[in-house]
Amino acid sequence: MPDSPQVDLNADLGEGFGAWTAGADEDLLGIITSANVACGFHAGDPVIMRRVCAEAVRRGVAIGAQVGYRDLVGFGRRRIDIAPDDLSADVLYQLGALDGFARAAGDQVRYLKPHGALYHAAATDAGQAGAVISALLGWGRPLPVLTLPGSALASAADAAGLPVVFEAFCDRGYRADGSLVPRGQPGAVLHEAGEIADRALAMVTDGEVPAVDGSRVTVRPASLCVHGDTPGAAAIARAVRDRLTGAGVRLAAFTG
Amino acid sequence: MPDSPQVDLNADLGEGFGAWTAGADEDLLGIITSANVACGFHAGDPVIMRRVCAEAVRRGVAIGAQVGYRDLVGFGRRRIDIAPDDLSADVLYQLGALDGFARAAGDQVRYLKPHGALYHAAATDAGQAGAVISALLGWGRPLPVLTLPGSALASAADAAGLPVVFEAFCDRGYRADGSLVPRGQPGAVLHEAGEIADRALAMVTDGEVPAVDGSRVTVRPASLCVHGDTPGAAAIARAVRDRLTGAGVRLAAFTG
Amino acid sequence: MPDSPQVDLNADLGEGFGAWTAGADEDLLGIITSANVACGFHAGDPVIMRRVCAEAVRRGVAIGAQVGYRDLVGFGRRRIDIAPDDLSADVLYQLGALDGFARAAGDQVRYLKPHGALYHAAATDAGQAGAVISALLGWGRPLPVLTLPGSALASAADAAGLPVVFEAFCDRGYRADGSLVPRGQPGAVLHEAGEIADRALAMVTDGEVPAVDGSRVTVRPASLCVHGDTPGAAAIARAVRDRLTGAGVRLAAFTG
Amino acid sequence: MPDSPQVDLNADLGEGFGAWTAGADEDLLGIITSANVACGFHAGDPVIMRRVCAEAVRRGVAIGAQVGYRDLVGFGRRRIDIAPDDLSADVLYQLGALDGFARAAGDQVRYLKPHGALYHAAATDAGQAGAVISALLGWGRPLPVLTLPGSALASAADAAGLPVVFEAFCDRGYRADGSLVPRGQPGAVLHEAGEIADRALAMVTDGEVPAVDGSRVTVRPASLCVHGDTPGAAAIARAVRDRLTGAGVRLAAFTG
Repeated sequence: MPDSPQVDLNADLGEGFGAWTAGADEDLLGIITSANVACGFHAGDPVIMRRVCAEAVRRGVAIGAQVGYRDLVGFGRRRIDIAPDDLSADVLYQLGALDGFARAAGDQVRYLKPHGALYHAAATDAGQAGAVISALLGWGRPLPVLTLPGSALASAADAAGLPVVFEAFCDRGYRADGSLVPRGQPGAVLHEAGEIADRALAMVTDGEVPAVDGSRVTVRPASLCVHGDTPGAAAIARAVRDRLTGAGVRLAAFTG
Repeated sequence: MPDSPQVDLNADLGEGFGAWTAGADEDLLGIITSANVACGFHAGDPVIMRRVCAEAVRRGVAIGAQVGYRDLVGFGRRRIDIAPDDLSADVLYQLGALDGFARAAGDQVRYLKPHGALYHAAATDAGQAGAVISALLGWGRPLPVLTLPGSALASAADAAGLPVVFEAFCDRGYRADGSLVPRGQPGAVLHEAGEIADRALAMVTDGEVPAVDGSRVTVRPASLCVHGDTPGAAAIARAVRDRLTGAGVRLAAFTG
Repeated sequence: MPDSPQVDLNADLGEGFGAWTAGADEDLLGIITSANVACGFHAGDPVIMRRVCAEAVRRGVAIGAQVGYRDLVGFGRRRIDIAPDDLSADVLYQLGALDGFARAAGDQVRYLKPHGALYHAAATDAGQAGAVISALLGWGRPLPVLTLPGSALASAADAAGLPVVFEAFCDRGYRADGSLVPRGQPGAVLHEAGEIADRALAMVTDGEVPAVDGSRVTVRPASLCVHGDTPGAAAIARAVRDRLTGAGVRLAAFTG
Repeated sequence: MPDSPQVDLNADLGEGFGAWTAGADEDLLGIITSANVACGFHAGDPVIMRRVCAEAVRRGVAIGAQVGYRDLVGFGRRRIDIAPDDLSADVLYQLGALDGFARAAGDQVRYLKPHGALYHAAATDAGQAGAVISALLGWGRPLPVLTLPGSALASAADAAGLPVVFEAFCDRGYRADGSLVPRGQPGAVLHEAGEIADRALAMVTDGEVPAVDGSRVTVRPASLCVHGDTPGAAAIARAVRDRLTGAGVRLAAFTG
C-alpha cells in the first residue's frame, strides 16, 4: 500500500507595516504549513515579524524568509537594478533579522522564498539568482529555496548544492510548456474556489492539470502557493486545504 | 608579580549609509579591540555591515551590535517615544541582522551597545532599558551589554542575569560623583591627545582620574570608548592605544 | 433673520502608503468640507496625495496639509525629540510637496493641521508649536492652522499674526474645563452615532454640550473633526453630516 | 561687435542626508550659476534643502530641482522599474517640496534636472521621460529641463512645449557622434584641470572639441556640468570658471 500523498501549503504572511495591515495572517496560519514571512524590506516590521513567528511556531507552521527588494512604497513589486553583490548583503540582512525572531519563538528560519519583483528576477536572471544563493552560502545551515521549476534560482541553488523545492499555483493557468499564463491573458487567474481546489488535488495526486490550450501539463509541486491578501483568497485557501485533506492528502511542511 | 592590567577599546563603526561614509573604519579596526557595528536603523546598511564584520573578524576585533532608534535622518540621536515592547522587537531585528554577517565572517555578535539617543534613554529610563534587555532574553546566548556604571540598563541586565560591562570615556570630563560633565559645560570634552591618553592610562592603572572640580573620582572601566568620526579623533585613539601598550597594558576584547 | 449657522467638517485623508490602504477616503470626500491630507512623512505617498487632491478639488473639498513627524512605521504617533529648527524644515517640505499636487489639481493648500504626536506636541510644547509656525512664516501666503482652543499652536499662530481655526471632536467626551477626557478614562470616546450627531448639532447651534461630570461646557468650534479609519466611523461621519444639514446648518470649508 | 559668449555652470548640490555630508556645497556655490538641488528621494533632506536654497539665493545662483528615484541607500543610481504614472507623482512631490524652500528664500525653482539612474532612464526611455514631463505639465509655470542633446527627455519636452536646455560635460570624452565615451572605456573621464578647462572654453567659444578618435565633434552647450563631490573636483570647477571668465565668457544662469 503506497504512502498517502503529501504536500506543503505556503503563503505570504506578515506583509503589513506599522499601522497598516495586509492579508489574513491569523486565518492563514490555520490553513498553511509554511509561512513566507516578510522581512522588513518590501513589507513587514519587527513587531509584525515577532508576532507572526511566535504564532507560526505555536501552530507548527514552518517559517521561511520572504526576502524582497528594499522598496516599501512599491511593496517590492518593482525591479531594482541592484548590483548582485549588494543584493546578496540585503538578502543576508533580512534572513538574519527574521531568524532572530524565529529563534526567540523556539524555532529557526527553515527556507527562503524571494518576493515579488525579486521572485521574478531570481527566476529569470542568473545574476540576481546568484546573489540570493550567495547570501545563503554565508548562512550556517543549508537552507532550501522555494521557487519555480526551471528557474534561474533553481539552477543556481543546484549548482551550489543547496536544496530546491518547487511550488505551483493552483489558482493560475498553465501553458502546455509548464509555464504560467501571463497575467492579463485569458485564463491567467482562476477565481472559483471549487475549480482551484480541484486543480490543487490534481496536481498532488495526478501530477498534472489541464493547460490553457486543453492539453495536459505536468505540474507536480512539493508545495502549493495559496494567497491570503483578500478575504476571498483566504476562503479559497481553506477550500484547497479541505479538498486535499478530504482526499487523504497529508499536509506537512516540506522542511520536515 | 601581578598580572599586567588589561582593558578593551571600543568604538562605533560602520556608520555610513549607501554612498555616504562616516568615520575611519579602516583606521579604527587597527586600534580597537571591540567594534560597535551600526545595524541599519540609525546608520549602516547591509553592504557596510558585511564589510565591517569581515574585516573585524580578520583582525580579531570583537563584533558588538550597536542598536539604535529607527531614524536615519536623525542618526539615532533623537529620542523617540517608542513603546518598550516595540523597541524590544526593533532591537532583536537589528541584532539578528548583524549576527548573520558576523556568522558569515566566521564569528558571531559578542555584545550589545545602544547608540545615541537610545544609549541615553537606556541609561536613564527603566522602560527603554527593559526593552533592550527583553530583546536580549529572546536571544539564544547571554550577551553582555556595554554601558555606563549606574545606568538603568546595567540594573536591568543585572536583574535579568545578563553580563554587564562598564565603559568610560577618556576624552570626557567627569564630575566628582562619577557622572560625565554634560556637553556644553566647561571641561566636558577634552581635545589634547596627550592629556586624553594620560587619562586613559590613569583609568586603567589607577582606577581614578581628576574630576572637573579637582577632586579625584573613581573610574575603573573594563572598556574605554574612543571615537573615530573625525581624522583627529582617530589620531587620538591611536595615541590612547600607544600610551596604554607602552605602559604594559594589555589590550583585549572584554568578551575574551 | 439671522444667518443659518455654519460649520466645517474635517477628516484625515490619504493615510495609506504604497499598497497599504487606510481609511475610507472616497466615502469621506462625499461627507466632509476640509481634507487633512497626509504628506508622506507619517503616511501618504505621492500617488495617493495626487489622487486625493484631484478628488478633493473635484468635489469642492478644501485641502489642508496634515503634517507629521517622519515616522512611517509609527504612523506619526510617537513623539520625536526633533530640534525645532529641523522640524520647521520638515513641515515646510511636506507643505510644499502637497501644494504641488493641490495646484496640479487646480487649487492650493488652504490650511495646516499637525498629525498625531505632532498634533499633541504642538498643542502643549511651545518649541514644537513655534517650529510649525516658523515653517508657515516661510510660506508665501498666510495659512490658517486648525487646532485646539488654548493650544500652544494657537498662541504661536496668534503671536505670528496667522489665522487660527478651532476644532472640536463630537465623538469625544469633554471635561468641565473644556479639555478632552483623556483616552482610557470613562466617557473619553463616544460610539453611538445618534448621540455623536446630537452633540455635533449642539456644538454648532448651542455652543455647548454636557461635560462628563454633567455640567455644561462651552464648545463652539469652527470645524468638527470626524473620523474615517473604520467603516463604522465613516457611517458616524455621515450621521453627523445628515443631522447638521437636516437642522439647517450650512456645511462649508472654513477657508471660505 | 558681437556679444561676449555666455554659458551656465551647473552642479549637483545638497546631496548629503542627515549627519552625512556630500560634496563641497559651499565652495561650489561660489563657482556655479545653477544648482541642481537634491530633493530628498535619492539624497538631501529638508534641513539641507533649506540651507542650500537660502545660500543659493543669497549668491544669485539659480535653483533647479534635481529629482531622483526614491532610493537613499542606492543614491538614486539604480534603475527602478517604476510605472510612469507613479514616477510622475514622485517627480511632482520632489519639485513641490523644493519649491517651498526656494520660495522661503525669496526665489523659486527655475528648472529640473533628473539625477543618476533617472537621468539615464529619462535620456533613453520614452516612458520614464514622459513621466518627468507629465509632472512638469502639472506645474503652474513652464520649467525648462536640463538634459543631453538627443535625449528622450528633450524630445518629450519639445513635444509638450516645454523649454529644453542642453548641457555638456567638460571632464568627459566625446565620441565622433556627439555621445559620451562610456565610463570604463579609455578616454571616458578626464582628470587634468588644465585640459578640462581648455575643453570647457572650446565648447563655449568654438562649439566643438576633439573627439576621442581625434576627429572634431560639435558640442555647443548652454550649460556646462561641473562636479564637486571630491575636493579635487571643486578645484577643477574653479579652474573651469577661471578659464572661462579669463577669456571673457560671461557666466550666467541659463534661466536668465
